[in-house]
Amino acid sequence: MSEEARSERLSAFDELSDEEIRSLLADLGDHELLELYAHLSDTQSVRAFMLLDLESKTDLIANLSDAEQEWLISQLPMQNMRTVLDEMDPDDLVDVIQAVSAEARQSVWNSLSPEAREETQFLLRFDEDDAAGLMTPRYLAVRPSITVGQTIAFIRRNGRDVETVYYVYVVDQVKRLLGVISLRDLLFTDDTITVGEAMARDVVSVRDDIDQEEAARILDANDLIALPVVDGYDRLLGIITFDDVIDVIREEQTEDVYKMGAMEGSAERYVDSSVWKLIRKRVPWLIVLLIAGTITTNVLSHFEPIILAATFLSWFVPVITQTGGNTGTQSSTLMIRGLATGEVRFRDVGMVLAKELAVGAIMGATLGAVIILRGVFLPPGVGWLPAVAIGGSLVFVVIFSSLVGALAPLVIDRLGADPTVMAGPLMATIIDVAGLTIYFTVARLILAL
Amino acid sequence: MSEEARSERLSAFDELSDEEIRSLLADLGDHELLELYAHLSDTQSVRAFMLLDLESKTDLIANLSDAEQEWLISQLPMQNMRTVLDEMDPDDLVDVIQAVSAEARQSVWNSLSPEAREETQFLLRFDEDDAAGLMTPRYLAVRPSITVGQTIAFIRRNGRDVETVYYVYVVDQVKRLLGVISLRDLLFTDDTITVGEAMARDVVSVRDDIDQEEAARILDANDLIALPVVDGYDRLLGIITFDDVIDVIREEQTEDVYKMGAMEGSAERYVDSSVWKLIRKRVPWLIVLLIAGTITTNVLSHFEPIILAATFLSWFVPVITQTGGNTGTQSSTLMIRGLATGEVRFRDVGMVLAKELAVGAIMGATLGAVIILRGVFLPPGVGWLPAVAIGGSLVFVVIFSSLVGALAPLVIDRLGADPTVMAGPLMATIIDVAGLTIYFTVARLILAL
Repeated sequence: MSEEARSERLSAFDELSDEEIRSLLADLGDHELLELYAHLSDTQSVRAFMLLDLESKTDLIANLSDAEQEWLISQLPMQNMRTVLDEMDPDDLVDVIQAVSAEARQSVWNSLSPEAREETQFLLRFDEDDAAGLMTPRYLAVRPSITVGQTIAFIRRNGRDVETVYYVYVVDQVKRLLGVISLRDLLFTDDTITVGEAMARDVVSVRDDIDQEEAARILDANDLIALPVVDGYDRLLGIITFDDVIDVIREEQTEDVYKMGAMEGSAERYVDSSVWKLIRKRVPWLIVLLIAGTITTNVLSHFEPIILAATFLSWFVPVITQTGGNTGTQSSTLMIRGLATGEVRFRDVGMVLAKELAVGAIMGATLGAVIILRGVFLPPGVGWLPAVAIGGSLVFVVIFSSLVGALAPLVIDRLGADPTVMAGPLMATIIDVAGLTIYFTVARLILAL
Repeated sequence: MSEEARSERLSAFDELSDEEIRSLLADLGDHELLELYAHLSDTQSVRAFMLLDLESKTDLIANLSDAEQEWLISQLPMQNMRTVLDEMDPDDLVDVIQAVSAEARQSVWNSLSPEAREETQFLLRFDEDDAAGLMTPRYLAVRPSITVGQTIAFIRRNGRDVETVYYVYVVDQVKRLLGVISLRDLLFTDDTITVGEAMARDVVSVRDDIDQEEAARILDANDLIALPVVDGYDRLLGIITFDDVIDVIREEQTEDVYKMGAMEGSAERYVDSSVWKLIRKRVPWLIVLLIAGTITTNVLSHFEPIILAATFLSWFVPVITQTGGNTGTQSSTLMIRGLATGEVRFRDVGMVLAKELAVGAIMGATLGAVIILRGVFLPPGVGWLPAVAIGGSLVFVVIFSSLVGALAPLVIDRLGADPTVMAGPLMATIIDVAGLTIYFTVARLILAL
């Protein structure tokens, strides 16, 4: 649906009958529904929610932010909430319970069926940021001694409420994971063979306490629809499905982008963040960067005599620091990404520095030539020798920035810290301070001051 | 496997027998294999490749970069290449054909079986960046008149070579997409009902020429294992599977990170990029930013009389521009991410500016206080009135930067350009130029110069 069409429907929302809204909503995909919902007023959104079919209700709730989940649940009549919560997948239900405030949690809890309460209690034992925080306990598992034909019959009997019927896990009497067989393989195997013979034994699984991002990478690398989660004794606890993994990858992406933008890396939506939350997310880094950045004040006051002898040098200070910063950011971005995808490691440091030296030298010469021409021919016009002094020192600043920008993430990663957070500030400070020192030193030599 | 264990095995690689290497490789997951492969020498990597089983061979080739695919294929004996290529999925095969040079393409082509050649020719008609570039023509489709029981039998007969057996598409005599039924639903439906009655009619599909990223979002939003691709007449062309979508999301992520780092957004691996390629990727933006940034030179030369009257003001120039830049980067990062995920739109501009004004004012006051204390109590020590002049003007610079940083991406997006690429440079220039003007103007008023 086009933006215009949606706006049009939306503006008429309050004049539509329940039946019209119901059919309007039924036409929307999950994604469109979420967008529409985000643009409704409070009253409208509750009305719209009540008119959804049960499946759309649970899908919508699962995709709302924590604050929106809490608000919506507080608006629903008890009986309605019970129907919706009982229909939700247990992993989504646990997210809701962790999202809402203590008071709301009690009423959510009271409205659950005994089975849902039991499943939820089981899942709440695990840390929500671990792999186990993504898993659902609704999977299919059989013993190795039953036949392929019996397994297919078992799926037809028990498959309605599980997250996926496409993998059946094979476990022993204490639920230790022995193997896996896909529904595809079941269909292509003789009905009389036992699952123990037909299953794949080299089943890819993860421990419950590994990182969600690591679990996502493992599912991705093996192109799995679902990934089993086991405890320290290799007992099957639950499964993680590919759709949850896609969500983890997207969240990770948002967090990385925020970190690159010099902010704390929590992926909360801008529209949901209060002014205070935004300030708490943003101001710590700004203060750190401000204090570190003031070392440049000392550098500039130190070179005061040279600035007084050649005032035009101070006019180019922002250009020098910005160009150094931009060059360093490029190098560090390439390294941070390379480290994240695993293609660059600390042991490659020799190759990286050689490459950055070559790239920095050629880029520095190019940028130096640009600034010389700009300095001579455009106002405020500084003449050839001053322009060469500025352009010449820029070459060294660019080379230095390329090297520092590449080195900082590699060293930080080697020390076990997160280069996405640390590399920017550290690098910016070093490049500003050292860059200005290089600038004034080289310029003084060329100008023979 | 730990890093150490891998290094150890690796160092002994040349002394191991073929049998030992074969069993070493068989133990590795796809991800580990790819990592190990990346660290082998040329001779070692060909030897390792030849010792893989056929499935691992095709998986590995599909996951290599273009340059690595081309190199590896040039090293393989003709007969070997034929076996491997015939086993590859058609979408991966097309990627290989598009990756290799014209000469290599001929020999790849000659070694294909007639069926593989036909499939490949069909897929090569589509643009590799469109949704169609991700699809495979190996899906299951039936007519609506056959029964559920017949469909399950059809899957058991024809399901071996398709990408997924978990969805069966229902098409008419000219292959127009009528509906879809999952293997799960087939198992839960009476065998004698026709597929036409049992199928879901509101099947989510995409046109062949939409963006890959858009197709990825649609599959993700609907939690689908596979997404059908249709032409302008709604005829089924192929399907896109979730594993390809995860790869698209990861690539998109790398491109966005590169753009934020002021580089062209192609996702080629650093280790594969030559010095010249890196320079071509990096130097254009640096030149644009350098030239735009030199407007600050004019600003500083314009305020020369004030700088000469209060030299200490120039010492704080890098701190002012950096802090303005950092603040603006935070705001624009939040907006770029908000636009990308769809939670912020141009129509929210009023809410965004109000929020940024409040956030900017409070952060500006905080940072202003920090710089006043720093200016008074730490060397080079500028006294209370100068420090208040600097800190006071910083408040306005931070407010201004918050607003510009938020506004730039919204306006650029509204004009139909890509804010990830354009917002950074545009904003940096405006903030530097206007920020320094604000700084000197406010400081002059406070100092009564």
